Amino acid sequence: MTSINERLARLREKMRESGLDAYVVTSGDFHCSEYVSSHFRAVCFISGFTGSAGTVIVTPKKALLWTDGRYFIQAERELSGSEFELMRMASKGVPTVTEYLAETLEDGQKMGFDGRIVSLKLAEEWKEKLTEKGKTVTFAADRDLVGEIWKDRPAQTFHDAFLLPEKVTGESASAKLVRLREKLKEKKAGAFILSSMDDIAWLFNLRGDDVPNNPVVFAFAYVDAEKAELFVNTKVISGTVQETLKTQGVSLKPYEDFWQLSVPEGTACLLDPAKTSYLVGQGVKNRIDATNPTTLMKCVKNETEQAALRESHRKDGIAMVKWLYWLKHHPAPETLSEIDVSDALEKCRREAGAFELSFGTIAAMGPNAAMMHYSAKPEQFSMIENKGFLLVDSGGQYTDGTTDITRTIAMGPLSEKQKKHYTAILKSMLRLSSANFLKGCTCYFLDILARGPVWDLGIDYRCGTGHGVGFCLNVHEGPNGFRWSKPVSMDGLVELEPGMVTTDEPGIYLEGEYGIRIENELLCVAGEENEYGRFLHFETLTLCPIDLTPVLTEELSPEERRELNRYHETVYERLRDGLTAEEAAWLREITAPC
Amino acid sequence: MTSINERLARLREKMRESGLDAYVVTSGDFHCSEYVSSHFRAVCFISGFTGSAGTVIVTPKKALLWTDGRYFIQAERELSGSEFELMRMASKGVPTVTEYLAETLEDGQKMGFDGRIVSLKLAEEWKEKLTEKGKTVTFAADRDLVGEIWKDRPAQTFHDAFLLPEKVTGESASAKLVRLREKLKEKKAGAFILSSMDDIAWLFNLRGDDVPNNPVVFAFAYVDAEKAELFVNTKVISGTVQETLKTQGVSLKPYEDFWQLSVPEGTACLLDPAKTSYLVGQGVKNRIDATNPTTLMKCVKNETEQAALRESHRKDGIAMVKWLYWLKHHPAPETLSEIDVSDALEKCRREAGAFELSFGTIAAMGPNAAMMHYSAKPEQFSMIENKGFLLVDSGGQYTDGTTDITRTIAMGPLSEKQKKHYTAILKSMLRLSSANFLKGCTCYFLDILARGPVWDLGIDYRCGTGHGVGFCLNVHEGPNGFRWSKPVSMDGLVELEPGMVTTDEPGIYLEGEYGIRIENELLCVAGEENEYGRFLHFETLTLCPIDLTPVLTEELSPEERRELNRYHETVYERLRDGLTAEEAAWLREITAPC
Repeated sequence: MTSINERLARLREKMRESGLDAYVVTSGDFHCSEYVSSHFRAVCFISGFTGSAGTVIVTPKKALLWTDGRYFIQAERELSGSEFELMRMASKGVPTVTEYLAETLEDGQKMGFDGRIVSLKLAEEWKEKLTEKGKTVTFAADRDLVGEIWKDRPAQTFHDAFLLPEKVTGESASAKLVRLREKLKEKKAGAFILSSMDDIAWLFNLRGDDVPNNPVVFAFAYVDAEKAELFVNTKVISGTVQETLKTQGVSLKPYEDFWQLSVPEGTACLLDPAKTSYLVGQGVKNRIDATNPTTLMKCVKNETEQAALRESHRKDGIAMVKWLYWLKHHPAPETLSEIDVSDALEKCRREAGAFELSFGTIAAMGPNAAMMHYSAKPEQFSMIENKGFLLVDSGGQYTDGTTDITRTIAMGPLSEKQKKHYTAILKSMLRLSSANFLKGCTCYFLDILARGPVWDLGIDYRCGTGHGVGFCLNVHEGPNGFRWSKPVSMDGLVELEPGMVTTDEPGIYLEGEYGIRIENELLCVAGEENEYGRFLHFETLTLCPIDLTPVLTEELSPEERRELNRYHETVYERLRDGLTAEEAAWLREITAPC
Repeated sequence: MTSINERLARLREKMRESGLDAYVVTSGDFHCSEYVSSHFRAVCFISGFTGSAGTVIVTPKKALLWTDGRYFIQAERELSGSEFELMRMASKGVPTVTEYLAETLEDGQKMGFDGRIVSLKLAEEWKEKLTEKGKTVTFAADRDLVGEIWKDRPAQTFHDAFLLPEKVTGESASAKLVRLREKLKEKKAGAFILSSMDDIAWLFNLRGDDVPNNPVVFAFAYVDAEKAELFVNTKVISGTVQETLKTQGVSLKPYEDFWQLSVPEGTACLLDPAKTSYLVGQGVKNRIDATNPTTLMKCVKNETEQAALRESHRKDGIAMVKWLYWLKHHPAPETLSEIDVSDALEKCRREAGAFELSFGTIAAMGPNAAMMHYSAKPEQFSMIENKGFLLVDSGGQYTDGTTDITRTIAMGPLSEKQKKHYTAILKSMLRLSSANFLKGCTCYFLDILARGPVWDLGIDYRCGTGHGVGFCLNVHEGPNGFRWSKPVSMDGLVELEPGMVTTDEPGIYLEGEYGIRIENELLCVAGEENEYGRFLHFETLTLCPIDLTPVLTEELSPEERRELNRYHETVYERLRDGLTAEEAAWLREITAPC
């Protein structure tokens, strides 16, 4: 950890030279992405924390890292030995980044950050809180001090892009642009700046490989009533793709030119402050702040996408069952490492048709699974054991969809507590997946269905119950998601709509003991419309058996039992044809009604 | 119904004379009350609709009544034969009152309403929507046209007021005023206008009898840093009460003087636009709009109140069991009318110590119970039958609390559908009452627990799952309540706090068939505080057995069964000492574990 402290010393030197009283480093890239390519892993470089979400504040005296509940255990481990202190977000007595800045900085001081990375929303939140406290603090947002001390920084690399055909997306880019322009008109916006890569990928039916596991292309977009400009590294866009885009009414511009974009004086420009960098936001005079309309359009999968999703989940289910069969029939699982089982699963998935994983597989044995986002590394991993739980969270990128599935597998004897907790998580998952509700119901109103059985044990999982999932895109996608902590604004209260895909993944994580999570993806579908309104429910997209050996079946309610048996019947019926006779016979056995 | 059409004709004549294009009559009184004394029943006078919530719009061509789901069936019946059309609120294709006005009125037209009755919030909403549509419509708010044609209108009568002792309320008026002034300071308000009578009753520990079933006093209040003025009919306040109030720092003013109240220029005055009349709001220059701080203070019952509530519910439970025993052992229930059983219950309740009912008892046999707020009348009632369900919703006012309880009783043979629906409602009620949740959870996030089993049947109850309950006050009290339809603002997302009392009353209402409702009152209490936060749960205040004869016990989950048996054990243990040996033995039998 000396290297981290040395890096800190060099950063503080830079800060001194620039007269900065604090420097903030946030996760993200120029596109406010959640997951980033190696070029953008500045938080990791400066702090050693490898999680996907962290914020660093460095002052002359302090070095602090904020992260959320998913990463508490991991961050503690990764920061230990360095000067960094862990700030556990949403824990009692821990200020937020904004609160800390507002408390600590003094009137007249100066703070620095990379204005191309920090979102407009966040920077404005800082400004507001500081002003509230009666403090004027200068923002120096034009230098990337971490970049200046990062000698061997990987370059921002651009990979070949490709188009998804309309028979898969169900809608052409030009048709999407027509709908988008209608939305802009409704919002009285003359222009629209779009920085988020998954929205851009969706809008133009364009895919690439510029962020690991996220098939997106480094790009910005500008759309008004007449033109749709795509700022992209034109070298990686083939002539055919360029031609096709042109016929859809899209003009291509060099990626770097985006920083010089200027919105015509007097034109109201819509942008999403959470998805646009501070630097870009500063350049827009007449702003309309709103969630990207593309985000709200993208999250509702059309019928073509839904049909494709069913097929990609069938393929993914076959991969999962083949792998489970291999694991459950392995003569000596204790000779396998977490990495071995991950690799075996990746092989099955690629054979089933995945062109990439949708995120780095989490294969976590025993206590490792208490870290929600654990990842085994060549220099640190565990061997599979013949007892306890193996948690595996994984997914694939298919040209007809993105998958995300977690199964927790009993590898041998379990304690009564483990069985009780596993049963609670199964009940949680089933209660949410079997929900019936009226249109108008928000994601927040259903969270308790999954969280209830965990709360009943006096335990909580410190994250949402589920997140939206992209279509051959990012595995985390907004705005839908099952959560319970009060949203910051009414916009956060997202209503569930047919076509939305959301994961259902309650869990129990006991530090030093074990982790349990069962995750299926749910497609919201329309049910009966009657005098009470339109009923909605979920179709489970994920197709993979759930390990029943740990289940205390007498604790299942009649409804839970019916939902479970119905699900297992579907899994068997949909997957059997893709399996060998032995695999199919085994699947029949483990999916028998309980 | 000719009389209704005649009244309409006279109102339209008045409208013509005043040049009005529309006249709106809303439920309520000068205090924006939900339930009103007979003087204020203008909606009923003009339309014939007797429900507690309705809005009338009369135009030269149309006469419309809006009401909510609780009253659809009843309103249909009561309006039939008159010119009035029923507008079913929140039903597909039905505009709101505001939308209707904005659609129908034309630029330059004039609409009238009684500005002492219509809330500031509602009138401003009308104005806003009209302006949005580009229409300028003049508001004539200074005349009560319905009053002008209402010859034999009952007078506004003022009854003797009394003070609740501190040993029951747990806090003196002067202590409450100290807390209130702190809240006003936080909101940067120099003054506070309070019109709602239950808030006034709470603040000054004052009770009366000015609204049927609501032990409130016609009064307004004005509080600033120095003074606390209570506008009240001083003739009904005894010398002792006046003296006591004075020692608490309260000065008394004549009730009518309130209309002349003027807030000093430059003083920011807090008021609740939903609980203050348009006329009063018009007189305040510098307004701070917020929920009445007293409402937020009142809803959290202190420990003294909680202890008193337990006692009042024990008394109410004894009354209920004695009555149930009488009914279940009656040799010929078919000789009884709905009114007979109501009267018998009232007798039991008064013998148990209630000084008043908390609302008119709903005793509804068979299809009558499909009307959520049915009330049998001497001119129209049903006889008890030896089959189907009798639904009884009732409650008492005790000096140590207000109760509200519903039981649905099997009077004889039931259909399979009836049993299935009754079982669903029992599950609904139990799922909510047994909830465990972290502090920060809002009322909205729990509603699905109760509504889920009903939604699973493709049915909805068109109302909240529960409402707050006052302490020796109104049976309906805000802001807590279990609901699911998206709130209009973030303020509506009320967090549950220890001390809040909310009903848990899911139901199924099938027009022409039957109604089922089971209602208990839940007190929110603190549970364990651990690394995840503070857990909360509910203590069921209501003590009364639930009829198990209709229950399909095999459909209960292990958790539901445990909750039910635990509840019945408590009911027996808490009530046995107040019963005769025969009653206690019977109670033991019907509360045996299932």
